[in-house]
Amino acid sequence: MVENFSEWFHDILEQANITDSRYPIKGMAIWMPYGFKIRKYMLERIKELLDKDHEEVLFPLLVPESELAKEGEHVKGFEEEVYWVTKGGKNDLNEKLALRPTSETAIYPMYALWIRSHIDLPIKYYQVVNTFRYETKHTRPLIRVREITTFKEAHTAHATKGESDEQIQDFIEIYKEFLDSFGIPYMISKRPSWDTFPGADYTMAFDTIMPDGKTLQIGTIHNLGQTFAKTFDITFEDKDGEHKYIYQTCAGLSDRVVASIIGIHGDEKGLRLPPLVSPNQVTIIPILFKKGKEEVMAKCLEIKEDLENAGLRVNIDDRDIRPGKKFFDWELKGTPLKLEIGPRDLENNITIAMRRDEGEKIELTLDDNLVDNVKDLLDKSYENLKKSAWDFQKEHVKFTEDINEIAELIEAGNVVAFNWCGDDECGKEIEEKTGYDILGIHEDAEEGAKCILSGDDAKYLALIAKTY
Amino acid sequence: MVENFSEWFHDILEQANITDSRYPIKGMAIWMPYGFKIRKYMLERIKELLDKDHEEVLFPLLVPESELAKEGEHVKGFEEEVYWVTKGGKNDLNEKLALRPTSETAIYPMYALWIRSHIDLPIKYYQVVNTFRYETKHTRPLIRVREITTFKEAHTAHATKGESDEQIQDFIEIYKEFLDSFGIPYMISKRPSWDTFPGADYTMAFDTIMPDGKTLQIGTIHNLGQTFAKTFDITFEDKDGEHKYIYQTCAGLSDRVVASIIGIHGDEKGLRLPPLVSPNQVTIIPILFKKGKEEVMAKCLEIKEDLENAGLRVNIDDRDIRPGKKFFDWELKGTPLKLEIGPRDLENNITIAMRRDEGEKIELTLDDNLVDNVKDLLDKSYENLKKSAWDFQKEHVKFTEDINEIAELIEAGNVVAFNWCGDDECGKEIEEKTGYDILGIHEDAEEGAKCILSGDDAKYLALIAKTY
Repeated sequence: MVENFSEWFHDILEQANITDSRYPIKGMAIWMPYGFKIRKYMLERIKELLDKDHEEVLFPLLVPESELAKEGEHVKGFEEEVYWVTKGGKNDLNEKLALRPTSETAIYPMYALWIRSHIDLPIKYYQVVNTFRYETKHTRPLIRVREITTFKEAHTAHATKGESDEQIQDFIEIYKEFLDSFGIPYMISKRPSWDTFPGADYTMAFDTIMPDGKTLQIGTIHNLGQTFAKTFDITFEDKDGEHKYIYQTCAGLSDRVVASIIGIHGDEKGLRLPPLVSPNQVTIIPILFKKGKEEVMAKCLEIKEDLENAGLRVNIDDRDIRPGKKFFDWELKGTPLKLEIGPRDLENNITIAMRRDEGEKIELTLDDNLVDNVKDLLDKSYENLKKSAWDFQKEHVKFTEDINEIAELIEAGNVVAFNWCGDDECGKEIEEKTGYDILGIHEDAEEGAKCILSGDDAKYLALIAKTY
Repeated sequence: MVENFSEWFHDILEQANITDSRYPIKGMAIWMPYGFKIRKYMLERIKELLDKDHEEVLFPLLVPESELAKEGEHVKGFEEEVYWVTKGGKNDLNEKLALRPTSETAIYPMYALWIRSHIDLPIKYYQVVNTFRYETKHTRPLIRVREITTFKEAHTAHATKGESDEQIQDFIEIYKEFLDSFGIPYMISKRPSWDTFPGADYTMAFDTIMPDGKTLQIGTIHNLGQTFAKTFDITFEDKDGEHKYIYQTCAGLSDRVVASIIGIHGDEKGLRLPPLVSPNQVTIIPILFKKGKEEVMAKCLEIKEDLENAGLRVNIDDRDIRPGKKFFDWELKGTPLKLEIGPRDLENNITIAMRRDEGEKIELTLDDNLVDNVKDLLDKSYENLKKSAWDFQKEHVKFTEDINEIAELIEAGNVVAFNWCGDDECGKEIEEKTGYDILGIHEDAEEGAKCILSGDDAKYLALIAKTY
């Protein structure tokens, strides 16, 4: 984990060719080629998981003001941060159009048209789109932006409340599997009522701890109940001929997943990418002298082909610069495994492998087992990144029964777990007293536990943190 | 080819679950699950072709007014149709922000930052994004829309004019290969000066003839010369230490590629999809009776697995409805090959295959050759679609030397080729006299040919048509 996270994060994005923030609108950045590839492999993974049971669609970006305004609580939650299109060419539009801050009000009027009968249910759609927030807070690339370029939002419709609750569990499992793919640790909690998604019955959230101790919300799942169904009049005819409102859920992930992959696994030398999202999983570095140059390059190409045939992404860095600079570059870019081959290695029929995550050099024989050995090192690299990250999280969640200790623990870089009665007023007072945000209810309290503030019987173990 | 194309096209989009145009903003539609998959496979193909030599990036949607306005001719070409964001929350923005109509003015200020030396060149970037046009003409899904959801735009930068001209040829080859993948015929022409992209030196365009005889522009490639380089001050230090302006090209494809796949190959029964973009390449229809039901389903699953292992996309339609309805549905959805299996077929160890493109039934033996036989039928299906489409185009390009014949030929559903001197004034007069649009210069004129209007020596064979 890096010191001075904020500065490190800012620098690494530019140095590793992830994003460029010099675009002339604050909070909107460019995905550069290397970063774009990380984003692409991340997207392929979530699509792979969602496609098992959901269908991808694509809705328009713009939402008419009249639709956005229909659900009172929802619009209140977003109206301060909506970008509005008011002109087309030189004409004023008859109706203002919102750049979607999220797509409930774009999608649900169509659900009202599509859903007629119980046989139309469930609907499980998702889309990957850009969404917009007129952020007034300080922006930060991938973390707090005005254009979220990679919003993965799923929207489901069900006949019963039970099915909608099951869907919430399904999303939780999908998000776990998704984040596990990159070794990103998470804490799941039910957000307090005052931090529930505008219009939702309840919100489940995934948070992760960044190296500076602040938590980053990286995924949210909302049970919308029948709020939007009533607003947009989305009904179906049940088996018994009765017309009923549907139950809905929605769930979202953003660019922050990439921020967490970069931030949590990175070290002072640069990125340490989990193999699944690394643009190159293996980088081959030929050590070239005049003598034996062709033989070394031929062997590099042969190894590349073998590894690629096994489904790996491989590059050869044959730039005419010294090997030390190449090592430096690929450490910065976080390629999980480097293979170094010089003329003497070729004579000895070996290559020197170096994992990015722990840096030890080991010799691999250039035989039929090479592909398996390389895959094995990649697996170990992933497992090690994942374990280190989870260990860090475990070390940084501290339990206390003393409300006066909370601020101190958080300032030392921790998330704090505490017993809570679950009462709204009490919760808000805890936030006020400590100056931090309750993430939510993590699990049930132990038998006999007392609330950290009210002293009443505690229902829950809750989490409080300094949040992004 | 269908009669009454306009009505057919409107209906098929809804019936085949391609797009839904009932979204509450005119000219903005929803990609439905089946249509989204066609779009996805189309995108995979262009990315496969571009990724060989270009890198994918992603720029912000919004462009500050000051950047958009910098290149005078460019902004003049777009100002009537730009959507403007003027408000963030309840505040008026300090500067209006345009929804990109195209991304030159978003990308090139960054090129000015990124390009320093000749070693930074060439740059070959592309992105796939949504772009916006405030269309005042009648909108039509996938053809004339206000949100182009799938704009594939490439932007390259070069040290010399020669390299930029070569890049134009590269794009032409890529677009040919791309459109060939779906059997879409095309006519390539150099647009006349008055139809050149605003700010470009010259524009090369791909047009295809839709069943109603109107041409659809499906791809454009622009040599931008040094216009934008001078506007945005994009210079590099050459080997000789001199500072020079770069040369640029850009190229774009839109949702119209999907419109042409649907429109050109479709028939009265529905879609006829080329295998490469068909969500299902093979649809297996089990003919189920009480007796032998399990055996038939088991065989269907076995065939599905074999075909999938060979890389094909296969579905089994085991809905509890009569087979006739299933045939009807999959003909509508254009699945290239259907396999029908009933208990008697199983006894005879055969399946009845039916290609969507020509409808003949043939028996395939259920043996080790099945996968190869299926692939062979898919290839034939694609080749047949492609040949029919090219034949249609060849039949519908008519040459004339009589200007008075042009209107009649076009009204009969043709594109007209004619000899032209190449003079701008003359060209505009031809358009005025006939009431149609010159697509551009298709090739050089034959020796001794005379211009259809001026009677001067003709330089070019040009095309004129009724355009979308």
